[in-house]
Amino acid sequence: MSLHTPDGYQALDNHSVRTFLAGLPEIRSKLGGAPERWTVEEVGDGNLNLVFLVDGPDGSVCVKQSLPYVRAAGESWPLPLDRAFFEQSYYRAIEPHVEGLVPRFYYYEPKLYAFVMEKLSPHIILRRGLIEGKRYPQAAAHVGDFAARSTFATSDFGATIEAKAELTARFAKNTSLIRITAEVVFSDPLSPSPRNRWTSPELDGLAARFRSDSVLKAAVAHFGWRFLTEGQALIHGDLHTGSVMVTETDTRVMDPEFSFVGPIGFDVGAFLANLVMNYLAQPGHATAADDRREQADWVLDQVPVFWNAFKTRFLSLWETSARGDAYPATMFGNPADATVLAAAREVFLDRIFADAVGYAGVKTIRRILGFAHNADFERIADPARRAPLETKAIELARAFLLEPASFRTPEDIVAAAKAI
Amino acid sequence: MSLHTPDGYQALDNHSVRTFLAGLPEIRSKLGGAPERWTVEEVGDGNLNLVFLVDGPDGSVCVKQSLPYVRAAGESWPLPLDRAFFEQSYYRAIEPHVEGLVPRFYYYEPKLYAFVMEKLSPHIILRRGLIEGKRYPQAAAHVGDFAARSTFATSDFGATIEAKAELTARFAKNTSLIRITAEVVFSDPLSPSPRNRWTSPELDGLAARFRSDSVLKAAVAHFGWRFLTEGQALIHGDLHTGSVMVTETDTRVMDPEFSFVGPIGFDVGAFLANLVMNYLAQPGHATAADDRREQADWVLDQVPVFWNAFKTRFLSLWETSARGDAYPATMFGNPADATVLAAAREVFLDRIFADAVGYAGVKTIRRILGFAHNADFERIADPARRAPLETKAIELARAFLLEPASFRTPEDIVAAAKAI
Repeated sequence: MSLHTPDGYQALDNHSVRTFLAGLPEIRSKLGGAPERWTVEEVGDGNLNLVFLVDGPDGSVCVKQSLPYVRAAGESWPLPLDRAFFEQSYYRAIEPHVEGLVPRFYYYEPKLYAFVMEKLSPHIILRRGLIEGKRYPQAAAHVGDFAARSTFATSDFGATIEAKAELTARFAKNTSLIRITAEVVFSDPLSPSPRNRWTSPELDGLAARFRSDSVLKAAVAHFGWRFLTEGQALIHGDLHTGSVMVTETDTRVMDPEFSFVGPIGFDVGAFLANLVMNYLAQPGHATAADDRREQADWVLDQVPVFWNAFKTRFLSLWETSARGDAYPATMFGNPADATVLAAAREVFLDRIFADAVGYAGVKTIRRILGFAHNADFERIADPARRAPLETKAIELARAFLLEPASFRTPEDIVAAAKAI
Repeated sequence: MSLHTPDGYQALDNHSVRTFLAGLPEIRSKLGGAPERWTVEEVGDGNLNLVFLVDGPDGSVCVKQSLPYVRAAGESWPLPLDRAFFEQSYYRAIEPHVEGLVPRFYYYEPKLYAFVMEKLSPHIILRRGLIEGKRYPQAAAHVGDFAARSTFATSDFGATIEAKAELTARFAKNTSLIRITAEVVFSDPLSPSPRNRWTSPELDGLAARFRSDSVLKAAVAHFGWRFLTEGQALIHGDLHTGSVMVTETDTRVMDPEFSFVGPIGFDVGAFLANLVMNYLAQPGHATAADDRREQADWVLDQVPVFWNAFKTRFLSLWETSARGDAYPATMFGNPADATVLAAAREVFLDRIFADAVGYAGVKTIRRILGFAHNADFERIADPARRAPLETKAIELARAFLLEPASFRTPEDIVAAAKAI
């Protein structure tokens, strides 16, 4: 490896991961048997890291390790290893609050920038399942619940000034991944960046038109400023359908290495955007046997399911668990305050929804014109079939950003997605 | 002293401050002569700290030290010493950017939580001068310039993600003073807090009415949430007219111990509010020889002077010194982008103004109904004369919070203050 790494760091492989785990008595005991008989599979299909699934006779674990570069780009794009520190910090910070909606966390090894957690089985990635035409009746509600629980508990509603300051200070240092988001999500896609790609030549004209759309760029830049400044809660930072593993009944959110104290709407908007993109991509996955119309409608129906789960949980926590310093109870002790306070909470959630719509627009544009695309569209092999679906997605995204007054409710999103 | 303090800490007195300074060769040389012949005066008239002015034959310095309690309240209100660390951190962070608008900083002694800086002479506190009927032709423009330079340089326009993260992480730990602001400025004044006081019995009815105003409380609480979450720039945190020392031609901003990465409008609104309060208080300082009408009008005219200086400088820095990651230049490289970007900047400054109006409302209410009052009103000895002026201020503050659409420009503030 040509990149410099700290003493004690080595990128694990199928052999050394056994040695590492064999040295951890609790993990070794959980797996059982002799380390040389464990099966090890490297499955990291994301953009950044190594991921090993390890099975022993008595149990299994998952090991995730940072590489000193962006895996999807290679060593030409170096990246600090400390993202593993932030990922495990996030799991530890939110695990007490999210009712089992993340994998169980076992161990962090600072020298290796690697951690060990529950191997989820028979879970698959939600995005993959949706692309394959499967339905997960609980998933959207679970992710809404997760987003509400994780952000409420770490916001100034659920956490004291002192507790939130700890999170703010710790995660502010996650600058390498905050920078990646700022560049790859917000600025690159509408700039002449060499990292961008799109379905070409079909979308060449669209890409040029979007890069020339000054008003759209100003709207995206404003959300970029808000992303960098609005420290509302500890957010996951990459809460798309590829960060969620599911079965029919169980849902787990993973891959929080982009986490920091940021705007709640960024998490909510990421999931909304990815549901809408999956909906719009469904015709591209149609076969003679299945036109995917019912699947598409079902996916789109998850938009209000997700938002309503988020909103209901957030409001209910605000009623029962307001231990923070924002909107303090001391200010609203009169019986007559209750109605006004309830209305203020509704307005607050409306603002989060509006933010989410804007961030959904930003996150959709970047999946069509930017560096990292998503499988919803990428798995449509024929560009002539893919490009018109991507065009629908990005035109809807533009409306999210430039016509915010048209998107007051999740039903507005559903209607607009169907109409486009 | 009954409160526990760390090893090495002692509250300085007129004797030990000499010993401390005599041990610092550069400071000793600056003062000149024998330490026992230096004159030492303790002048801390603020709410929190010890302040010594030390004069030697060759020069002078000012020493500021944290006490382990709130000086204005006594030992019954303990307060961590580390605010001196944050105050000196602020000076060091913004000194390169503010063109001499702060005192020169000389030395910080961590064990004593004390620092040494320039003794300003013949400067007096701006608020005191305004109360005495003096005018400082440069002051408002200088403070506007200061607010723009200090916040721009530490915002995501002037600083990289990495540089701003350092500030965010460091100042997030200033929780004791952030908590004081959250409580004493935002929540206490409209709550039944024993720390509150007001001109009684004259304002008893008004205080009760304000505490029962649910809609007003929700508006204040929303600004309180924004204060805790909007990490826009390193802000001074207490930028009122008592934090500014002036001569006819020189202006210095001091007392930044409340600093943290927060909303820019909080600094701007603090100064606006204190100009307006001084204006409204002027009739209370009238004498047979001077009805103070001209002085009052001059003070109020400083509202647009201050805002225009802030806005002009902020926009000019945005043109020339945009080294940050928000609104990055890479997104706006087309010639056609210039007009839209200029309009977006105007909208951005309009938002800061709107924020400032809201924070001005919050900061005015707290000076009439909360713990810490200001000399503008307090120096009006006769409560029958003071109370109606305070009533004007707080009714205007209520309009700032509940009728924001009426305050789009500084001239709107001037007109409303004259009309009330």
